[in-house]
Amino acid sequence: MTYKRKTSISWVEQESIKIRGKSVEELIGNNSFGEILYLLLLGKLPSKNHARLLEAILISVIDHGVKPPSTISAVTVANTGASLNSAVAAGILAINEYHGGAIEESMMAISEAVKIQEKGLDKTQSAEKLVDEYKSKGLRISGFGHRFHGDDPRTVKLFELAESLDVAGKYVEQAKVIEQVLSNKTEKKLPINADGAIAALLCEMDFPPKVANGIFMIARVPGLVAHAVEEQKNNPPMRTVDVENYYFEDE
Amino acid sequence: MTYKRKTSISWVEQESIKIRGKSVEELIGNNSFGEILYLLLLGKLPSKNHARLLEAILISVIDHGVKPPSTISAVTVANTGASLNSAVAAGILAINEYHGGAIEESMMAISEAVKIQEKGLDKTQSAEKLVDEYKSKGLRISGFGHRFHGDDPRTVKLFELAESLDVAGKYVEQAKVIEQVLSNKTEKKLPINADGAIAALLCEMDFPPKVANGIFMIARVPGLVAHAVEEQKNNPPMRTVDVENYYFEDE
Amino acid sequence: MTYKRKTSISWVEQESIKIRGKSVEELIGNNSFGEILYLLLLGKLPSKNHARLLEAILISVIDHGVKPPSTISAVTVANTGASLNSAVAAGILAINEYHGGAIEESMMAISEAVKIQEKGLDKTQSAEKLVDEYKSKGLRISGFGHRFHGDDPRTVKLFELAESLDVAGKYVEQAKVIEQVLSNKTEKKLPINADGAIAALLCEMDFPPKVANGIFMIARVPGLVAHAVEEQKNNPPMRTVDVENYYFEDE
Amino acid sequence: MTYKRKTSISWVEQESIKIRGKSVEELIGNNSFGEILYLLLLGKLPSKNHARLLEAILISVIDHGVKPPSTISAVTVANTGASLNSAVAAGILAINEYHGGAIEESMMAISEAVKIQEKGLDKTQSAEKLVDEYKSKGLRISGFGHRFHGDDPRTVKLFELAESLDVAGKYVEQAKVIEQVLSNKTEKKLPINADGAIAALLCEMDFPPKVANGIFMIARVPGLVAHAVEEQKNNPPMRTVDVENYYFEDE
Repeated sequence: MTYKRKTSISWVEQESIKIRGKSVEELIGNNSFGEILYLLLLGKLPSKNHARLLEAILISVIDHGVKPPSTISAVTVANTGASLNSAVAAGILAINEYHGGAIEESMMAISEAVKIQEKGLDKTQSAEKLVDEYKSKGLRISGFGHRFHGDDPRTVKLFELAESLDVAGKYVEQAKVIEQVLSNKTEKKLPINADGAIAALLCEMDFPPKVANGIFMIARVPGLVAHAVEEQKNNPPMRTVDVENYYFEDE
Repeated sequence: MTYKRKTSISWVEQESIKIRGKSVEELIGNNSFGEILYLLLLGKLPSKNHARLLEAILISVIDHGVKPPSTISAVTVANTGASLNSAVAAGILAINEYHGGAIEESMMAISEAVKIQEKGLDKTQSAEKLVDEYKSKGLRISGFGHRFHGDDPRTVKLFELAESLDVAGKYVEQAKVIEQVLSNKTEKKLPINADGAIAALLCEMDFPPKVANGIFMIARVPGLVAHAVEEQKNNPPMRTVDVENYYFEDE
Repeated sequence: MTYKRKTSISWVEQESIKIRGKSVEELIGNNSFGEILYLLLLGKLPSKNHARLLEAILISVIDHGVKPPSTISAVTVANTGASLNSAVAAGILAINEYHGGAIEESMMAISEAVKIQEKGLDKTQSAEKLVDEYKSKGLRISGFGHRFHGDDPRTVKLFELAESLDVAGKYVEQAKVIEQVLSNKTEKKLPINADGAIAALLCEMDFPPKVANGIFMIARVPGLVAHAVEEQKNNPPMRTVDVENYYFEDE
Repeated sequence: MTYKRKTSISWVEQESIKIRGKSVEELIGNNSFGEILYLLLLGKLPSKNHARLLEAILISVIDHGVKPPSTISAVTVANTGASLNSAVAAGILAINEYHGGAIEESMMAISEAVKIQEKGLDKTQSAEKLVDEYKSKGLRISGFGHRFHGDDPRTVKLFELAESLDVAGKYVEQAKVIEQVLSNKTEKKLPINADGAIAALLCEMDFPPKVANGIFMIARVPGLVAHAVEEQKNNPPMRTVDVENYYFEDE
């Protein structure tokens, strides 16, 4: 009645710890965090360039001020005297469909458009088909447009870096064409935002959409830790967390 | 009745996102993940060597097989059809006093011994004083001894790396002397384990003990993501997660 | 830019706390828990009979041994030295699509069949239509069949109670006909299980399907609390929770 | 290496589900929720009066408007498109030392004072000793004083009910004397608040302090469910939850 279950991730024995079949002690000091994160999630070591780009992606969303719902949730729980991990867990619970989840949806849209190309359409035609499909279902394409920023400065930098590392390819190109088609069809500016840029780049590096929200969590947990620690250091318990009443000051 | 609250972590305005006062777009591509993690948590950029060591620490505990309680908890929740973030949050909730928490406690013990030195005692005397104090309170010193491994291969590698990067200093030395004193006093081998090694190194890099469990969470979330994704891909829902019945096989 | 948000649930002022417009101090001592739970969730006081049935439903799923994933998750986290609320939260995270979620799905199936009746079909015809629809989509109807129990003793009792309280009506009847049609069509016994019985009864009491998983959580949190408290009292930290190795003994 | 673990809570076999040794099917319909909750947590059925009082306690804290941190956390997570259980779990994570935790601390203080009596002191002397002890440690006694309410209307009602049910005894008396002594010593009004009243009554019913926070969670989960469901029904995703901008309106 009990089945043996397979795992391919990591394995621990008396004197040995292996990640995807490689000894942890051989990884320590010889590899960057980006390389081992890629190895852990996808099962093989990436090129140096892919690892550098993956780290840049993590850095681009490592934190985003006091207003994201994950930060509010983590800070609210930290303020009740919770242990650090409870606060972080509460933050993680907000990384969902509408917060973080856009990367996954954007990956699915961009890769769908790339697939449409394979049927003999060019990039513009496939972008138009995608945009029409989404419109007919009453959906918007995730990864384009942003509440706060016009042109997202992170998009520009991530795409520049990807160019220089020779990682930008068909997904980045397709995303740019989708941006243009959206702008033509809607007469609004809907620039590729950070979610969309990250989506295109994760597609270039062979990440499956299902892992996207995991990447966002991995990137943002440092921010959640920082805010929870700051809250417990600076503020008395049982205050009402009011995100409109913050100011920034270097320590 | 509403107070303005200070934050020193990050700040978002119309066209700008700053982490500890630095523009995110200037960090992208120019810094490693270790550097920006250090910046975010401690408020300043580290030396290249400190950043490399911090990444090595993350890698040393990025995953640890199927048996840690955080993995069991994440996999159990993943198996109920939960969203990825729910599974990761459940895993994080297990990173606590007895799992991960040892790093914080070990940092406090090692830095206490270093402080005792400042009163004019040498390393052996301060280790002996620390060991006696803990013994008189019926406590064991966290970071020494391990359930599975004899000499933890990660400890050896982390210390070698710290030496080569010129980061190993008084805390590492003190930890080694504590190991020796413990072994003399108890006649058992209680080698510095990975928690203890990480503790000594985080002390060398000026991390406060309160952040230690946060570092462990940041390091382990990738592992939790990997296990939760694997569970939902490989196994039918509502199985009983039985950690004794796993085998490892490369994909 | 800030909108006033409406709440209809509860309101607190200087000297007054109101639940759905009623003063809490007038509810204390004058109403059963079932009555106020119904009031809170649906906005009006129920009949005494509905309140009694709602309490019976809570009792029927208040706990279910050591093997449900919510219990494993809560106990695993409790064992790491977590605070009680962390353990309970980890348990709640497992109450999901495949564990607890069947009630909501079953409510949707049963009420769909009842709606089909309104088009002039009798109960058997509407059950057949429902079963065929689900089959054509490759889905099974939640609330029928159970891994452990043959006839679920809880179903029998809940339906008897509902009869005696005069609450059983068209949804219970429809559920019984679905059971019969399933058995005829599949030649397997797929008796209404506790999820299905609760689903039919929540339909009778006008609960919307969206609240069903909430009812299950409300019912099960007492069990999670009990198991987490027991774990921290009885067992040493960092054991591997192995659900196959329990025995029951009265205290 | 595997130990058999004892559980005394519940046990499930092929055709039988037992709670504390009693068949669930015999409990359904024959007992109130308060009775079975008491049975589950303490291992024996209570008197009818104790069960009624326990239900009144649950009702007194079943919800408390939009401002408690557990509600903010649950609503914030619900607003990101989370599943209902994720929102509830995030709420539970805020029920901690400073929110809900006061009941446990108050139980410890009141029962400590009652224990002091056993050494031959009267109620006033033991209250004075307790107050002095707490003052000398720089601590305040939980359960006395409240941010919003002067005399908490819930305290009055709970104590009246306990009198009429013949449950009020030495712990309630002791709590009232502590209130008086605090008022004499501090020249401030520090009335017994709902936490303190509940604490005294849980002491009367033999609940151990360790379970107190569990009782509060059990009581409040219905409120968290109601707020999370309301949020997802009424409000668009990714709004900033701002608790100062609510109004109440009956549905």
